[in-house]
Amino acid sequence: MPADSTPCSPSVPARRIGVIGGGQLARMMLGPAIELGLAVEVLATAPDESAAQGAAAVRIGRHDDPAAVRDLAEAADVLTFDHEHVPAEILESILDEGIAAVRPGPAALVHAQDKLRMRERLSAAGHPCPRWWRAASPQEVDAALAAETSGRLVAKTPRGGYDGHGVRVISSSADVADWWELHPELLLEELVPFARELSAQVARRSGGESAAYPVVQSTQRDGVCFEVVAPAPGLDAADQERIQQLALHIAEDLDVTGMLAVELFETEDGEILINELAMRPHNTGHWSMDAAVTGQFEQHLRAVADLPLGSTAPVAPHAVMVNLLGGQESDLARGMRAAMEQDGGLKVHLYGKDVRPGRKVGHVCVAGEDLEDLRARAHRAERLINGGGDAATETTEGASA
Amino acid sequence: MPADSTPCSPSVPARRIGVIGGGQLARMMLGPAIELGLAVEVLATAPDESAAQGAAAVRIGRHDDPAAVRDLAEAADVLTFDHEHVPAEILESILDEGIAAVRPGPAALVHAQDKLRMRERLSAAGHPCPRWWRAASPQEVDAALAAETSGRLVAKTPRGGYDGHGVRVISSSADVADWWELHPELLLEELVPFARELSAQVARRSGGESAAYPVVQSTQRDGVCFEVVAPAPGLDAADQERIQQLALHIAEDLDVTGMLAVELFETEDGEILINELAMRPHNTGHWSMDAAVTGQFEQHLRAVADLPLGSTAPVAPHAVMVNLLGGQESDLARGMRAAMEQDGGLKVHLYGKDVRPGRKVGHVCVAGEDLEDLRARAHRAERLINGGGDAATETTEGASA
Repeated sequence: MPADSTPCSPSVPARRIGVIGGGQLARMMLGPAIELGLAVEVLATAPDESAAQGAAAVRIGRHDDPAAVRDLAEAADVLTFDHEHVPAEILESILDEGIAAVRPGPAALVHAQDKLRMRERLSAAGHPCPRWWRAASPQEVDAALAAETSGRLVAKTPRGGYDGHGVRVISSSADVADWWELHPELLLEELVPFARELSAQVARRSGGESAAYPVVQSTQRDGVCFEVVAPAPGLDAADQERIQQLALHIAEDLDVTGMLAVELFETEDGEILINELAMRPHNTGHWSMDAAVTGQFEQHLRAVADLPLGSTAPVAPHAVMVNLLGGQESDLARGMRAAMEQDGGLKVHLYGKDVRPGRKVGHVCVAGEDLEDLRARAHRAERLINGGGDAATETTEGASA
Repeated sequence: MPADSTPCSPSVPARRIGVIGGGQLARMMLGPAIELGLAVEVLATAPDESAAQGAAAVRIGRHDDPAAVRDLAEAADVLTFDHEHVPAEILESILDEGIAAVRPGPAALVHAQDKLRMRERLSAAGHPCPRWWRAASPQEVDAALAAETSGRLVAKTPRGGYDGHGVRVISSSADVADWWELHPELLLEELVPFARELSAQVARRSGGESAAYPVVQSTQRDGVCFEVVAPAPGLDAADQERIQQLALHIAEDLDVTGMLAVELFETEDGEILINELAMRPHNTGHWSMDAAVTGQFEQHLRAVADLPLGSTAPVAPHAVMVNLLGGQESDLARGMRAAMEQDGGLKVHLYGKDVRPGRKVGHVCVAGEDLEDLRARAHRAERLINGGGDAATETTEGASA
């Protein structure tokens, strides 16, 4: 049975979508699902989780509990994901028994779950990656470090990382001593001296239909995505096309169904290297909710429900998305009001999450003609909502870790 | 206490919105409410009603049951509406007891509930209306008819009408003989020989902040809105401005909070006459969901939650919305798939309602540069989704009834 096969007839689109995980990505699927007439049920760990607050149908349970996932699948035509941490064996048993379709299927999803598998597969297919090593012992880590003139590498846990967690710049095997208990192998990568980070998002249906969004520029702060500019400034049409084709090829090679984000490094000399993959809507695509004909959450639903994909065309020359990362201010509503007061074109998205330092609790987006004006507006709104007043902005750019 | 006063401090926006009525207008508020972090609870008459299917919080009850409305109000900061049929005395008691804010307040809402009160008030304020009469007996109806050279008038029940119900073109008092049992008075209006129908939508907060959308052209079929073109073709900037100002003045005069739709007749010589008022999101504003910076459902929520209003600017030169009015095909999902297959730029909105002939069960929208192309695309999609194949379109235009 193919990895995303479905018990439904192929000519009948799925109508009942089970979403595993109750975070903001599941939450932002809810609005588009309502408009498309799709019934979403969310598997959340608590009734006050981000998506559970807004969903008409919620099941409480863990993504790694086979019974909880199976119960969700029994009530759905297709399962999809808010995150990539669902064990493959749970998904495989649901497919084997024909309970529901799973999109993306576990054979694709493993490349977003396991960074070693991702590097192996992408390298074997000839897709551009940083130099990388598999290390199964402190000795292997030190040997790899000894061969680097900089004496430094990026170490990653193959599984379980997110938003900078599970990623460290190291100069000694002692820097990852605490990781061996949970991870028998680590991924080591060269420290890419990148000029900036890009992200290429594509959507793909199981039959092969696919669509590419404009390639965007992503800027991190403390290891977390902070600002996204769509399309990536200064990227000419040929480079846009080349990078979109790369992402489309990866989606095809891995048989991805749904949204795929390919996070990329661009070096000073214009070389493109693949950093990470995500098989779901992604932070670097939030701009599309407000500034593309088809937002990524609608597009993901269309892909997993096996509906034809929508246009990825932007509705304005530029869009800027800035994340609301938790700061001192715990009440975002007051700042939202102030930010809306200043800027009638501002789009605010709150995730209903308790504010904790650095936590993604919402985002803002503006679209229009003048990129520098848009950046100033988006960052001002972020500061106002986070209670930081109206001071000058700064964004952090750095090395690949 | 003012009509929309609230027990909250004026500096604290409302966060819990009780929506009375579970139709598609309440349903289309759900997505924007999730994004703004507002908690919507819907008072629906059945669990499978349009908005009840998608809402996280649903209460089953009738809009004219004082206890049901009060229970909703107890759990909300502010009440608002999917339709205008809630008895004023229920809303007044909620305000008198300070249970929740009501937006729009009952003193404004009466002008959308009672067409005689609307005509009185608008005429007194000097706003342009068709010639009209109040008739309390068959004799008064016949007397008014006798004075018309055409021998015909439009008769309306003052309350309870919608989508052509409660509106008739008459040439004798016998034509309304069945209405006297429920209605002690009728509204009679001249049969306006209009060239087309327009609609002007504005949003207003209780403090007076207001915003006007582009004036649109609306075309009916069998007394029901069928096609909306935004902005209205051929309306020059001065006329756009004049009509927007009229709608803004009406909102101010009546102290409307939330969205106000002013449905208008435009005569051959460019005269503008007010047809109807609606104080909620309106069918003629659905285009804004997909083709304005701030859609009317988000805008209504912002106004009733006392958040600053958003930009009403369109994101494309033209938008065309076509209603899906129930036809022979009961399964809309199949046609939706075919329509999406043909047109990646198409936006489809389904309301989750059982298909009945002429019933509004969804709408489609397209936006872009070429108006005639957009009209062709929207009507083709409507035919495909309604199971009518891909034949040529026709739209019906006629007299004011």
